[in-house]
Amino acid sequence: MSRIITLLSDFGLQDGYVGAMKGVILGINPQALIIDISHEIEAHDVTAGAFVLASTYSYFPHGTIHVAVVDPGVGSGRRAMIVETKRGYFVGPENGIFTLIYERETVIRAVSAENPKFVEPNPSRTFHGRDIFAPTAAYLSLGVSVEDFGPPVDSGQVLAFPSPRISDGMLEGQVIHVDRFGNLITNISVGVFEEFVGAGNQEIRLANHKVSGPYESYDEGRKGEVFGIFGSSDLLEISMKEKGARETLGLDRGTVVRVLRPVKGGGR
Amino acid sequence: MSRIITLLSDFGLQDGYVGAMKGVILGINPQALIIDISHEIEAHDVTAGAFVLASTYSYFPHGTIHVAVVDPGVGSGRRAMIVETKRGYFVGPENGIFTLIYERETVIRAVSAENPKFVEPNPSRTFHGRDIFAPTAAYLSLGVSVEDFGPPVDSGQVLAFPSPRISDGMLEGQVIHVDRFGNLITNISVGVFEEFVGAGNQEIRLANHKVSGPYESYDEGRKGEVFGIFGSSDLLEISMKEKGARETLGLDRGTVVRVLRPVKGGGR
Amino acid sequence: MSRIITLLSDFGLQDGYVGAMKGVILGINPQALIIDISHEIEAHDVTAGAFVLASTYSYFPHGTIHVAVVDPGVGSGRRAMIVETKRGYFVGPENGIFTLIYERETVIRAVSAENPKFVEPNPSRTFHGRDIFAPTAAYLSLGVSVEDFGPPVDSGQVLAFPSPRISDGMLEGQVIHVDRFGNLITNISVGVFEEFVGAGNQEIRLANHKVSGPYESYDEGRKGEVFGIFGSSDLLEISMKEKGARETLGLDRGTVVRVLRPVKGGGR
Repeated sequence: MSRIITLLSDFGLQDGYVGAMKGVILGINPQALIIDISHEIEAHDVTAGAFVLASTYSYFPHGTIHVAVVDPGVGSGRRAMIVETKRGYFVGPENGIFTLIYERETVIRAVSAENPKFVEPNPSRTFHGRDIFAPTAAYLSLGVSVEDFGPPVDSGQVLAFPSPRISDGMLEGQVIHVDRFGNLITNISVGVFEEFVGAGNQEIRLANHKVSGPYESYDEGRKGEVFGIFGSSDLLEISMKEKGARETLGLDRGTVVRVLRPVKGGGR
Repeated sequence: MSRIITLLSDFGLQDGYVGAMKGVILGINPQALIIDISHEIEAHDVTAGAFVLASTYSYFPHGTIHVAVVDPGVGSGRRAMIVETKRGYFVGPENGIFTLIYERETVIRAVSAENPKFVEPNPSRTFHGRDIFAPTAAYLSLGVSVEDFGPPVDSGQVLAFPSPRISDGMLEGQVIHVDRFGNLITNISVGVFEEFVGAGNQEIRLANHKVSGPYESYDEGRKGEVFGIFGSSDLLEISMKEKGARETLGLDRGTVVRVLRPVKGGGR
Repeated sequence: MSRIITLLSDFGLQDGYVGAMKGVILGINPQALIIDISHEIEAHDVTAGAFVLASTYSYFPHGTIHVAVVDPGVGSGRRAMIVETKRGYFVGPENGIFTLIYERETVIRAVSAENPKFVEPNPSRTFHGRDIFAPTAAYLSLGVSVEDFGPPVDSGQVLAFPSPRISDGMLEGQVIHVDRFGNLITNISVGVFEEFVGAGNQEIRLANHKVSGPYESYDEGRKGEVFGIFGSSDLLEISMKEKGARETLGLDRGTVVRVLRPVKGGGR
């Protein structure tokens, strides 16, 4: 069992919420090694939490315990889940935050974390990160079996993550994340892109902007140019040099990006 | 002696101030386990620091060393304190940042941290976090006795944290903290509230807004509704669904909240 | 070999980029102790990264491995460097981020980190923090010799950090960093200042503002007064009480600050 526990949330870093979770974990397992993934997920943005978790977890050692708490439904009937995969363990609410994990990993088992031996039996109404998810992760890291936390459950709610599709001879995707640099990250992977484009030429459009590239490095972009590049998750990103594409273009998640194969040798 | 040292400050995370403190601590005790509570306390806001510390420390193991540095008086005559309680150790300036600790914990001893063996003898004028408080915490974590750091002192300045009071038949409290989500956290605890309300009905008002609830979960709130809920510190919070109550209502710390017991069966 | 690895970047904390780096490091060396210096360096601001690194590294134990990734040229031809000094190891792009390290420390050796045994042989185009710098630091922390990472290189690009100079009988420096509190940190050290001023009087001007002091503590400043103080890096800082000098004065990095020795016993 790994002693590494990662934390992802929309709690921010100002209020001590994350600190309280760490205190609870260390109270149960003083040997736990707690690593922050992000606590700056936009408040209540489960989709962003799912994306950031999916782009990070695979870089951790097998067996790592990943806690992800973007949880607008805290205190309602939604269950607290543990999802065991070959890669590691995922602990969080059943609200779709593990959607991309289900797409990429084989689930060995999933249970509802409810055994009062391992969670706060009288949890607060508003902070299950501290009262449910933190102790669950801590006991997992001590070697408690997944089955001991509660009854098996199915995967819970799943978010509709858009997939790119081919329509009218165009490959159509969309922006699914915007990062700190204002890069617009799309759902078009290098594999899907290359299969569509083949050996030919292509043209990329983001909303009504022409997109150069894809380039091999940011360095190829010129100032003011909107260009594509395959980023760190092998997804097509739309970038601008030295500025954020989001702010400059005024575009955000959901913006459609299209890849076209222009007819060669055309013209009148 | 615990090897856990928590850090709370208003230093922010951009300048490396917190990193320097950690370097100093690890230079003295390489086995220290340093956990951040918050470094995003509003600059110079000792009251916010006191609140966040008070809502977090009790989740850490006994003996944990809590360093809290919101310190507008750095470099002036104010003393650096170590406060020992049954719960753990508190290290910080004598400016009231431990006010709520004094209310909740029994002080075993308090000393002025000034022994030049354990602090930087020529501290900078502006950064006692690095030069005084970090080494103090590190030596404490190595097992140096509190008495060895300096002479006993009294508790130092204490902040006037408002308490709720009953007046004109109303329970009157106020907003004492606003969290990342824009929740307005009041000083009315569930105990005080229930004793006042008894078995009867109640009406909650925040400034001139009617407040529904208190609800059992955020989920009960409807969009646009201003509602109460007892939050993670068992204090009445005023919330709105999917948005921050602070921004939407334009209210902040210090806003008065009133709980009324309406006359039953009254009216014509 | 130290097991401490510090991280400095402009990655921010929202996207999981820093988390991915930590996962890679812990996958290679589970005993590594990873400490964040800052991830809130302004995007692409290599100068700010160099300043924050320089004001922090010396507080860590000898042998610490400092990773600094502010890397607008990622994916271009620029090399990844390891710089070994008596103090410790510095890992980052050859874009000048180590300029102030070269000024202060003696370089024992510098190599290009390119051995495919110790870095991701097919790195992403956009995230060498994860694919090159993190594994380099992790293998260093395991005791791999610097020479084994790649061929020796010179120091790479060096940034033009302005030095204060004496001109027309004035000591002229400039603002080289602005911190979280809005303090304007200049390049005038206490040594240079005292040598220039000697036993006499002085007058400090920041752009067209008269600056009081330098004071011994923030406490001496009055509300609304612009004053100098020697800060935590022994550099002259221009501050205002309870507010940021940057916002209040509308000044930023690059603003000129002048120290004058007024003629004594003047008159008409």
